[in-house]
Amino acid sequence: MPDRPGAERSTTAELFNGAVAASAICAAFELGLLTELEANGAIDPAGFAARAGLDHLALDAVILGLRHAGAVVEDGERGLVPGPAFGEIWRDKGYFLWLIGGYGSMLSGAAQVCRADGWPSRTNARDGGAIARAGKDYGAQFVDSMFHKLVSAVPHRTAADLGCGSARRLIELAGRAPEARFVGVEVDAAAWSAGREAVREAGLEDRIELVHSDLTALPDGAFPDVELVFSFFLAHDLLPRERFVKVLAALRRAFPGAQNLLLSDTYRSQQAADPHCPIFTLGFEYTHGLMRQQLPTFAQWVETFELSEEWKLLATHDLEIAYSTVFHLVPRDDARDALTPPQDETGDRSE
Amino acid sequence: MPDRPGAERSTTAELFNGAVAASAICAAFELGLLTELEANGAIDPAGFAARAGLDHLALDAVILGLRHAGAVVEDGERGLVPGPAFGEIWRDKGYFLWLIGGYGSMLSGAAQVCRADGWPSRTNARDGGAIARAGKDYGAQFVDSMFHKLVSAVPHRTAADLGCGSARRLIELAGRAPEARFVGVEVDAAAWSAGREAVREAGLEDRIELVHSDLTALPDGAFPDVELVFSFFLAHDLLPRERFVKVLAALRRAFPGAQNLLLSDTYRSQQAADPHCPIFTLGFEYTHGLMRQQLPTFAQWVETFELSEEWKLLATHDLEIAYSTVFHLVPRDDARDALTPPQDETGDRSE
Repeated sequence: MPDRPGAERSTTAELFNGAVAASAICAAFELGLLTELEANGAIDPAGFAARAGLDHLALDAVILGLRHAGAVVEDGERGLVPGPAFGEIWRDKGYFLWLIGGYGSMLSGAAQVCRADGWPSRTNARDGGAIARAGKDYGAQFVDSMFHKLVSAVPHRTAADLGCGSARRLIELAGRAPEARFVGVEVDAAAWSAGREAVREAGLEDRIELVHSDLTALPDGAFPDVELVFSFFLAHDLLPRERFVKVLAALRRAFPGAQNLLLSDTYRSQQAADPHCPIFTLGFEYTHGLMRQQLPTFAQWVETFELSEEWKLLATHDLEIAYSTVFHLVPRDDARDALTPPQDETGDRSE
Repeated sequence: MPDRPGAERSTTAELFNGAVAASAICAAFELGLLTELEANGAIDPAGFAARAGLDHLALDAVILGLRHAGAVVEDGERGLVPGPAFGEIWRDKGYFLWLIGGYGSMLSGAAQVCRADGWPSRTNARDGGAIARAGKDYGAQFVDSMFHKLVSAVPHRTAADLGCGSARRLIELAGRAPEARFVGVEVDAAAWSAGREAVREAGLEDRIELVHSDLTALPDGAFPDVELVFSFFLAHDLLPRERFVKVLAALRRAFPGAQNLLLSDTYRSQQAADPHCPIFTLGFEYTHGLMRQQLPTFAQWVETFELSEEWKLLATHDLEIAYSTVFHLVPRDDARDALTPPQDETGDRSE
């Protein structure tokens, strides 16, 4: 899927300049410059620096990077206005924050991370806060509409979010469905605490229950009322395959009444070496490889689900994030016909 | 100066992928993979990982980034062989190490660095060791031949290197000129100590004297025998202009016998926002802007030299690094004709 048909591979100058521009885009997003430019259509750099408490020479450097990328152009007295690439950069800003803000230390220290003892000892190689902020941005643009379509298609009075983080999505769902109840499961203590606080602030303690637990440690029959279970970009963290199959079994026992399991995730493209590979794909595969994760291809995910004695794959629903889909699983005893992926369709995903 | 005439601005996918590929190139250089590939013409990833003590999944991620950049291709039983872009990447590897290894923390934390108190408090934003290793690589390729040509054109029995770092260049010069003596001045204590050790190991203590000092603190008449004084990419660190002019005066007093002063440096291009800007330029201007340095253009350097009462600009000699030159200064009382840069020539440098 070429972004720019017929274009050649990038030169070393373009690769180098891409790294600089990516930093500038990430910084401009974090500083609120892109947001203000999108809202107001123009920005006065000196005034922005003063309001935001920034050094003006440093801000000029960020603006230089943005000009190089075509995000902004100078327009005399109006100051900076959106450039020819602003729309594309505004849309993709979350990916840049994810890569540069979230994994920047890993990018600069990749040689050290490669050493046999280089991971996970370098715990500062990821910035979880930046990754969460990035996910909020690209999730809202590229995931939420498909997700809400799927959720509204499967009736449920109680739903569970596996790896719910700080409960942002549960709180949003609670606002959309005033009758429904929710369960969130989160293994990270800090995220779970933040979620509890957010639920309290939203006044939703009676409708959202947050559980601090590993997925395999949930008691059997713990949540008999939950009819819909979902997770976002969590499944690949539950690998390897043997462990994943056990997690699926544990989920069936913990959520015996669940009729639908929606697992959204990004699979290995086998196309990341292509110079035309879309945004996100190469970065996702590069960082996860450095973290010693061997991501499954689409076909390998399908094979993995076939190993489950509890769940069968009913359908997949592609997201707007490249090589990312929602795997829709239902209990094996469900009467609905499971997906039998035609060889061709699976093949298409790696071309 | 388009690298690829007629090419469009990079897409967001290309900028994003450039950042990933830059990390992979930097890592492959640091791990010795590029060097082994250049020497042997092929590499077995599994064997390389075992010999170098690397995790094979992490190394595979680096190789994925290299394949994306065209640095390597898979070739069946031979393993990895150089790809279509290997020559270009081998040539430019020092620039990637400089940017990603040297300034990677600054790239990922650019938003924080922009804040009024964000620099120089973030002292870990630069990795001096990586910057030195990078300079050794691109210096050998793009600076040394011009430098040795200039040095051999100006007779000298004693020469001084301002900001000599770990004395690598002085030791090399001593090997080329067995009769000559050398002085190195270095303000950084760690680099100065490393230089002393290197000089001792080379058995050159009788011919190379290393002084731990700021340039403005050198005693008047300290080095009467020095006939040639030079520095590499140091001049912009001696700005602003008023300070720089004082340093020039102090140098005249400390080196009263110096007949030639060769200052190599990179000047501001005014072209870094152009999508076709060559490698290094945008990164140099971006990082120095974040460090609150306003780099002079070529014309501004010429103006600055004109303010000196001690030195006049005799000539400039462009380096193979974009927008970088050797400013050749001589004492004002020297009979040689100074450079009077034609308006056109100066203008050309910013077009």
